[in-house]
Amino acid sequence: MKAIQDYYPDELAHCFGCGRLNEHGHHLQSFWNGDTSEARFTPQPFHTALPGFVSGGLLASLVDCHGTGTAAAAAYRAEGREMDTLPVHRFVTASLRVDYLRPTPLGPELLLRGKVRSVAGRKVVVEITVSVGSEATARGEVVAVEMPDAMRTKAP
Amino acid sequence: MKAIQDYYPDELAHCFGCGRLNEHGHHLQSFWNGDTSEARFTPQPFHTALPGFVSGGLLASLVDCHGTGTAAAAAYRAEGREMDTLPVHRFVTASLRVDYLRPTPLGPELLLRGKVRSVAGRKVVVEITVSVGSEATARGEVVAVEMPDAMRTKAP
Repeated sequence: MKAIQDYYPDELAHCFGCGRLNEHGHHLQSFWNGDTSEARFTPQPFHTALPGFVSGGLLASLVDCHGTGTAAAAAYRAEGREMDTLPVHRFVTASLRVDYLRPTPLGPELLLRGKVRSVAGRKVVVEITVSVGSEATARGEVVAVEMPDAMRTKAP
Repeated sequence: MKAIQDYYPDELAHCFGCGRLNEHGHHLQSFWNGDTSEARFTPQPFHTALPGFVSGGLLASLVDCHGTGTAAAAAYRAEGREMDTLPVHRFVTASLRVDYLRPTPLGPELLLRGKVRSVAGRKVVVEITVSVGSEATARGEVVAVEMPDAMRTKAP
């Protein structure tokens, strides 16, 4: 099954968090599961905060990319279009918030679950929960906006 | 000059964002400049969002670590203590917010400036601006709390 990020055109698929064409990135992949978007990610041993726990900065990066990916997918859905149709939706983050509910243990797979709160014009708001097993360890909100034209100009 | 993070004891210096002992991390270093904390960071070419711009997730990670570092330094100052005295202050993030004001160009050095908004008990709030040259590209707020005892248990 193709991930949401697999539909990003090549010139927009270099993101450090989720770009399939970024050799050094995290390669986060997001999928619909009904009305919820999901991404699974197993941090590397060096993605540490304090020993034994996952870096809050890494979690913020995963929340960020899962949020913009979910936003793009939601924009297609809102228009009744498949993700392989034109024009392309590609969102960037206007505002990111992450509340760290408890330390996230380093080792097990993380599950990010996204819920679309609103789709209004060029703006989509996504709420995301990060959990390990049955325990939510962080909660995030991404306010995503359609990529401004100014960001296209530097695409290769 | 020693960075704030250089005062973290070895067992708490493995953070992906700022740990001097993390071989794969960003090694962010923060310093006081009067009442402002500053950190300079030049992203790598692969720290991209869309081509030509810095990953918002990376920026969140830098804001996170600059915030917790500033919080620790502010806690020592509030007690009139130097950072090489005991007991150790080490803060983690309870809540992180980043507003992306405009795309951050990839290439030039970034300057993060932190202002301590409050020091109250185990909680310190830090506001951070990310700028490139004279232009602020992101603004963040970190609510940092003293590391809970539960996070010490897994330290090597």
